[in-house]
Amino acid sequence: MAKSTSGNFFEDFRLGQEIAHAVPRTITTGDVALYSALYGMRFAPQSSDAFAQSLGLPRAPIDNLLLFHVIFGKTVPDVSLNAVANLGYAECRFLAPAWPGDSFTAKSEVIGLRENASGKTGIVYVRSTGINQDGVKVLEFVRWVMVNKRDPVNKAAETHVPQTSLSVQGADLVVPPTLDASAYDPILGGSPYFFDDYQVGEKIDHIDGMTIEEAEHQIATRLYQNTAKGHFDAVQQKASRFGRRIVYGGHIMSLARSLSFNGLANGVFVAAVNGGRHVNPAAAGDTVYCWSEVLEKHLFDGRRDIGALRIRTVATKDISCSEFPAPGSESEPVVLLDLDYWLLMPRREVQA
Amino acid sequence: MAKSTSGNFFEDFRLGQEIAHAVPRTITTGDVALYSALYGMRFAPQSSDAFAQSLGLPRAPIDNLLLFHVIFGKTVPDVSLNAVANLGYAECRFLAPAWPGDSFTAKSEVIGLRENASGKTGIVYVRSTGINQDGVKVLEFVRWVMVNKRDPVNKAAETHVPQTSLSVQGADLVVPPTLDASAYDPILGGSPYFFDDYQVGEKIDHIDGMTIEEAEHQIATRLYQNTAKGHFDAVQQKASRFGRRIVYGGHIMSLARSLSFNGLANGVFVAAVNGGRHVNPAAAGDTVYCWSEVLEKHLFDGRRDIGALRIRTVATKDISCSEFPAPGSESEPVVLLDLDYWLLMPRREVQA
Amino acid sequence: MAKSTSGNFFEDFRLGQEIAHAVPRTITTGDVALYSALYGMRFAPQSSDAFAQSLGLPRAPIDNLLLFHVIFGKTVPDVSLNAVANLGYAECRFLAPAWPGDSFTAKSEVIGLRENASGKTGIVYVRSTGINQDGVKVLEFVRWVMVNKRDPVNKAAETHVPQTSLSVQGADLVVPPTLDASAYDPILGGSPYFFDDYQVGEKIDHIDGMTIEEAEHQIATRLYQNTAKGHFDAVQQKASRFGRRIVYGGHIMSLARSLSFNGLANGVFVAAVNGGRHVNPAAAGDTVYCWSEVLEKHLFDGRRDIGALRIRTVATKDISCSEFPAPGSESEPVVLLDLDYWLLMPRREVQA
Repeated sequence: MAKSTSGNFFEDFRLGQEIAHAVPRTITTGDVALYSALYGMRFAPQSSDAFAQSLGLPRAPIDNLLLFHVIFGKTVPDVSLNAVANLGYAECRFLAPAWPGDSFTAKSEVIGLRENASGKTGIVYVRSTGINQDGVKVLEFVRWVMVNKRDPVNKAAETHVPQTSLSVQGADLVVPPTLDASAYDPILGGSPYFFDDYQVGEKIDHIDGMTIEEAEHQIATRLYQNTAKGHFDAVQQKASRFGRRIVYGGHIMSLARSLSFNGLANGVFVAAVNGGRHVNPAAAGDTVYCWSEVLEKHLFDGRRDIGALRIRTVATKDISCSEFPAPGSESEPVVLLDLDYWLLMPRREVQA
Repeated sequence: MAKSTSGNFFEDFRLGQEIAHAVPRTITTGDVALYSALYGMRFAPQSSDAFAQSLGLPRAPIDNLLLFHVIFGKTVPDVSLNAVANLGYAECRFLAPAWPGDSFTAKSEVIGLRENASGKTGIVYVRSTGINQDGVKVLEFVRWVMVNKRDPVNKAAETHVPQTSLSVQGADLVVPPTLDASAYDPILGGSPYFFDDYQVGEKIDHIDGMTIEEAEHQIATRLYQNTAKGHFDAVQQKASRFGRRIVYGGHIMSLARSLSFNGLANGVFVAAVNGGRHVNPAAAGDTVYCWSEVLEKHLFDGRRDIGALRIRTVATKDISCSEFPAPGSESEPVVLLDLDYWLLMPRREVQA
Repeated sequence: MAKSTSGNFFEDFRLGQEIAHAVPRTITTGDVALYSALYGMRFAPQSSDAFAQSLGLPRAPIDNLLLFHVIFGKTVPDVSLNAVANLGYAECRFLAPAWPGDSFTAKSEVIGLRENASGKTGIVYVRSTGINQDGVKVLEFVRWVMVNKRDPVNKAAETHVPQTSLSVQGADLVVPPTLDASAYDPILGGSPYFFDDYQVGEKIDHIDGMTIEEAEHQIATRLYQNTAKGHFDAVQQKASRFGRRIVYGGHIMSLARSLSFNGLANGVFVAAVNGGRHVNPAAAGDTVYCWSEVLEKHLFDGRRDIGALRIRTVATKDISCSEFPAPGSESEPVVLLDLDYWLLMPRREVQA
């Protein structure tokens, strides 16, 4: 009886199946320090307890993307160990703040299944949830992955393609309950630009670039307890289509988020991820740049201290983003990530 | 008067000598985060305070191998700075749980000395102990190292080769005092297999592999405050027999321990190390795989919640372990580590 | 309206200008763990809460150089994003102990400006200050950097070259208020040599060497939230004079400080930095060695437990320091750092 596992194949999933994921996890200030050092994060509320307290928070919260990576990591051994590709994300919302010292678990529900025409692979759709030690949901998201079949001869029992929203509605975004940004200090925050200064359609070149090292993405991906082999095993990867280790897609998300500080410094909380696509795989040696576009603005009923910006951030490798290179153009081969998400940003008016 | 030190040579040791090692050390959740991220550790009680509390522990304990590396590191400047090779370990027992925030010191007693026939080196045997801020012994182990002589002309004053046990007796293993594994959740733990499901002689291929980077093993070895030059100084190592930096042997232990999660996930505590041999040196670029064999099973008197598995884990480089390659065979050149140790693992019966 | 910034150019600075820097920062035990692991720090009071308490401190303080790097990092986006070179440091004093959990901000005053003859660059002198959450100054230092002009046509409005001290006076050094080193344990400290054992003019070869990896210096520099592009962007650096990523100069300071443990182990606090010069840039692959000279000794009025040693440490790359290679000699091309600083070290007499 083999005690080690090679993960689930397409035939192993059932519509409506509930999966409780292994490896509960406490996120500590140690994890936060490492996360900060891997990307150079500088958003003020996550960087400083004192600054967080000036916004009505008890202390610096855990960066929402760190939380996302940790919960995502828990789903990998059950959902995507045999994934050919991460195809997409949707409806990712951060539902409650997470604090250093909190302990998290994760579960997923299979909400869609569709075998591919080749018969060799299928697409699995799951809704995953992160839960803290008090049973509070802190995060949920949908993702879909292309998973190998154990045997092409096996026939798929069920087919169902779920409908997901193109974007989380502004009214469904969750603002941390005690947050009051009316005294937000933009000098400490790092930018004079408030919510009110951004226009729909505006594009921002984030200018700075960062080169990825093997040790960095491996340390990051292990920090998230993500076990996908392609990130760690150079010998096995030699035989793969890519020929070498692939960087975890979430590593590019966090790099882009960090680089976007230069232009979006006051976009202090990622409140939701509407969708995301890893346009090309990234590898060590790639230098990541990014640019952003403001897609939409949302005002919350009854509060004048904060608003939400819907942002698209595109990350590229080895070329500057001063020309805003995008997927679907001749720039397609150098685009790594196309991410659509909501940021919470303090409003200027309340200063008046 | 030279204020810097080149470490002790074989002639500097005396039988019965007691050495108090420098550099007291508090292990924090920061160290734990880094340790986790360097290896991708996923054993549940060390990963989650909430899970640890479900087992009657006050919080997530420090991983015993992290504790071992830190105490080992303290002994290096006095014992093995001039070591040619780490020859072996024996009688390593973890005597009390260690918690983040605890402060440790280390001491060693010289329990054996034997000059080699060449007259150029000798073997030094020490029993080393780790002690916490309350004076409680948390760890002890014997190791022996081949150490250069300062001058071949010097004659050895004493010769004594100590007897060490081939294995720690099951009855001598220490279970953390408040531990109660009767409500252990195997889903969160990561495997359906309990103590009762493992058979003596059973072999497990742990499947996954991990490639070592220079930055990773250097960061790890410095985390342990281990100063052995061969791990850090590429210039000096060019002139060495190996020609490049050598990875600290304990780094391979922790990599193998992490990889063994896939097959031994519920073996949540390393209770003892019976013996270990670094069969070949490892270097950056090596991809580590491993397999394990169950050598022995131990039931503790009067407790039905937990048992001990004596495990042999063999780590290799650059080849899969599906064929269980072992030292002493034609696989010898690709074997990095041959480790014999005791794991504590919850028992199934209590669930009934 | 461009929301991202390319930093200040020489013309943007005004004499007397006060700059409040962005990104407040809490330094946690997580940051401390990472700092320790990046350099292998072993000074006892920063390594162990229990040892710190034996000296009358509430717990292990934050290493002063870590504090320096964090405050320095905050000044980079405003002061030196367009710097051609870091020219020097002076009058750096550590004014109050910093503890894990403290939150820091930084501000700078422009105290000097001088355009260079070329008209393309100018020198900016700033006095920077680090402040904790209680408004207490923990650190101040002067530095001067050569900064590009936006346009050579622009004329400098003002010229003023401030006078800085060659060295902080011993009487101006701050000893942590509750520190009492009379029971300092030199065995745990790592060296039998006290303040009294060092002679002015004495030179110490610190022997050990450490090879720098790209991932290491990038992780360190991001830990300090230092955004200078030359450390991170391999693509942009290809077009630079150096042709590759440059290691943050402070990384060499901390490496040298860590290596100097072997010979200066009881020099447990850096109390001031009198001056420093990055003689040559460092890059990944360089192996750092160092040596030190005792420049001066200071006794504090009314205390017999501790004194101050003024030390010069010279760090080199790829060559041993047994011959004490110095800048200004034929060794100039291999010298990385020439640092002049004050260490606090326990005195022996009180043991009598």
